[in-house]
Amino acid sequence: MSAASPNSDIPVLAEVAEAVRLQEGEMGVRAILQAFRQLAPAPTRAISRRTGLPLPIVAAVGNELRSRGLLGQERPSRLTPRGLALAEELGVELNLDPDCYRCGGLEIAIPSVLNEAVERLRRIMAGGPNADVSLDQSLCTAETKVRRVLALIRAGVLPGGSVLLVGDDDLVSIAIGVVGDVLGVPLASRVGVVDISTDILDYIADTASLLDLRVDLEQHDLRKPLPQRLRGQFDAGMTDPPYTAEGARLFLSRVIEGLQPGAARNILFSFGAKGTEEMLEVQREIVGLGLVTHGMIRNFNSYEGSGILAGTGFLQQLLTTASTASLVEGSYEGPLYTREKRSRQREYECVSCSERFPVGAGARWNSVADLRAAGCPKCGGGPFRPLQLVAES
Amino acid sequence: MSAASPNSDIPVLAEVAEAVRLQEGEMGVRAILQAFRQLAPAPTRAISRRTGLPLPIVAAVGNELRSRGLLGQERPSRLTPRGLALAEELGVELNLDPDCYRCGGLEIAIPSVLNEAVERLRRIMAGGPNADVSLDQSLCTAETKVRRVLALIRAGVLPGGSVLLVGDDDLVSIAIGVVGDVLGVPLASRVGVVDISTDILDYIADTASLLDLRVDLEQHDLRKPLPQRLRGQFDAGMTDPPYTAEGARLFLSRVIEGLQPGAARNILFSFGAKGTEEMLEVQREIVGLGLVTHGMIRNFNSYEGSGILAGTGFLQQLLTTASTASLVEGSYEGPLYTREKRSRQREYECVSCSERFPVGAGARWNSVADLRAAGCPKCGGGPFRPLQLVAES
Repeated sequence: MSAASPNSDIPVLAEVAEAVRLQEGEMGVRAILQAFRQLAPAPTRAISRRTGLPLPIVAAVGNELRSRGLLGQERPSRLTPRGLALAEELGVELNLDPDCYRCGGLEIAIPSVLNEAVERLRRIMAGGPNADVSLDQSLCTAETKVRRVLALIRAGVLPGGSVLLVGDDDLVSIAIGVVGDVLGVPLASRVGVVDISTDILDYIADTASLLDLRVDLEQHDLRKPLPQRLRGQFDAGMTDPPYTAEGARLFLSRVIEGLQPGAARNILFSFGAKGTEEMLEVQREIVGLGLVTHGMIRNFNSYEGSGILAGTGFLQQLLTTASTASLVEGSYEGPLYTREKRSRQREYECVSCSERFPVGAGARWNSVADLRAAGCPKCGGGPFRPLQLVAES
Repeated sequence: MSAASPNSDIPVLAEVAEAVRLQEGEMGVRAILQAFRQLAPAPTRAISRRTGLPLPIVAAVGNELRSRGLLGQERPSRLTPRGLALAEELGVELNLDPDCYRCGGLEIAIPSVLNEAVERLRRIMAGGPNADVSLDQSLCTAETKVRRVLALIRAGVLPGGSVLLVGDDDLVSIAIGVVGDVLGVPLASRVGVVDISTDILDYIADTASLLDLRVDLEQHDLRKPLPQRLRGQFDAGMTDPPYTAEGARLFLSRVIEGLQPGAARNILFSFGAKGTEEMLEVQREIVGLGLVTHGMIRNFNSYEGSGILAGTGFLQQLLTTASTASLVEGSYEGPLYTREKRSRQREYECVSCSERFPVGAGARWNSVADLRAAGCPKCGGGPFRPLQLVAES
């Protein structure tokens, strides 16, 4: 077996990691180079999916690689001859995709009998409410909805059990009804939905009535404890909370309040790809809640649209234990959404005119959604590409 | 959607859960019933694999279901007409397997080009050392070895990176060499192996020389800190430690000692299915080590042989963070292996003569391996089936 040079002898990896302040360090840059080598040409999203690194990070590393002549300017991009030579030097050349080609590494494949369910959900989504980015909403695809129902079946919750959906802008309640309808089997003994949005609840109610699906709807701000009538009722819960440690703790606490007491109750927890430090915070919360991880599928959730909240996220199967308890007894008033948490600004580049703008707390635009809504102040166009974090002053 | 009776109205679930002291409670019994319904007829191991519950637990629940006339006496067993009626009452009737049929829900499928690697590893294993059950060893199958190499490729560690194997009775070092040989690509810049067993190290050395594989072997008791020459050297690590929280902490600490400093280094951690309380202990250790879970594939590892250590286990992909550090600075002298931890005895039944014997600390046989080696004291035969834990006196 030939000895490759240790990575630390190749200074460009460290330079790029430093330039974008990459938590993942040289190994992160190496993984992105390898993904560009294997998937080329590949859009940023495909690289993000393959490496598990957040979209803005991949975009920023891509820009650094371009400025060093390692990655081409064309989109989607591929490595330049110099980039290919670097890949060879790093020994990352191997044309073998270990992901299962049937399920794409997602463990669960949608059986053909459920293609009809995907189609019906796609039509239902087309008439539904849009995502509210101020609540970190980003709607998952019809395929993801069906896969989530399959995950509940796989966990043994369905058919026959009861499920509480803590937040349901993703319309999983409707997906349970549609999949059951297509299979000709009523899947859940009870589906509870708690959401702050009357738009979403109204839409679920209207759609459920057409489906002969009984859902138990509750308009409720999840900052407050679950209403008494929903506490201690359900076999299992599901949530796709705001992508902050505080969001995870709060929404998981509300799920726990809704579960019947006892160990080994399932919670299916969806969350967005984050840097390792933020993920450690989230996992500390999970262990602190007395929840045990029973499985975790990367890229399980695909979200529609674009921007830093789009892309993919993981599904984590959690089980309650004897020590599981809500950690948010009363109301919660602290920061919850990424826009409230984001302390630093990030630069965005207008793809039409290449002008760059800082976005974030204290900048002219609070979020890239605001910038998109306003349009580029120079050329009136867009879309916008995320670049580096702005250095703190 | 029809309303099924809440499970708590069906007392047999609670009775069985109570009889076997099932941590997972009624939901665990329900999951086992559902698995028998869907897989029938199914051997205990298939039920364990499907439900994620440990083999002795599934066997004990099966016995309780049999004594209540819900499960047949024949092996492999299926539900009796009364059992089928109960399944219908519980609403667990659905003939749909959500696991991807290609990879069996394992995310990674072995491409046909690597069938040769599986065959070669099978032959290599046939000439290798046997498992030492006193060290909780239980050898993984040839397919599992190849899948572990694919997991290192998927994580971006291979090709090109360096890997430290903390314990390698599973011969993953050899698997890296064989897979690289079949693909015609040297996979790792360096493979380090630390193991206490000279038998295993000698066998790896002999096999590696035939393969032209360079491995860096170190005979070492992992209760002691990693030798200086291996510290801070590797891009990634892999371990399949003793299946106790102490074993996880110790072996993961030794892996961390061997890794280059920095975040986002991969550790592939194999562990056996445990009850939820024990798993929570293990996950507390993982978070305490500053490691973040990036993926977790149930049933990823299949082990040869029989007994309570055989069956399947999960693969957890961990990443280092800025706060990752070894938690066992000096030598460790505490309990480590399951036989040292197991405080209660379990009853085993001789399949030949149906006589039952307690096994465990303080009993005539310390482990089922001892009982197997001695043979049934009544009929001289075997094999032995695990039953319930013996009530503490």
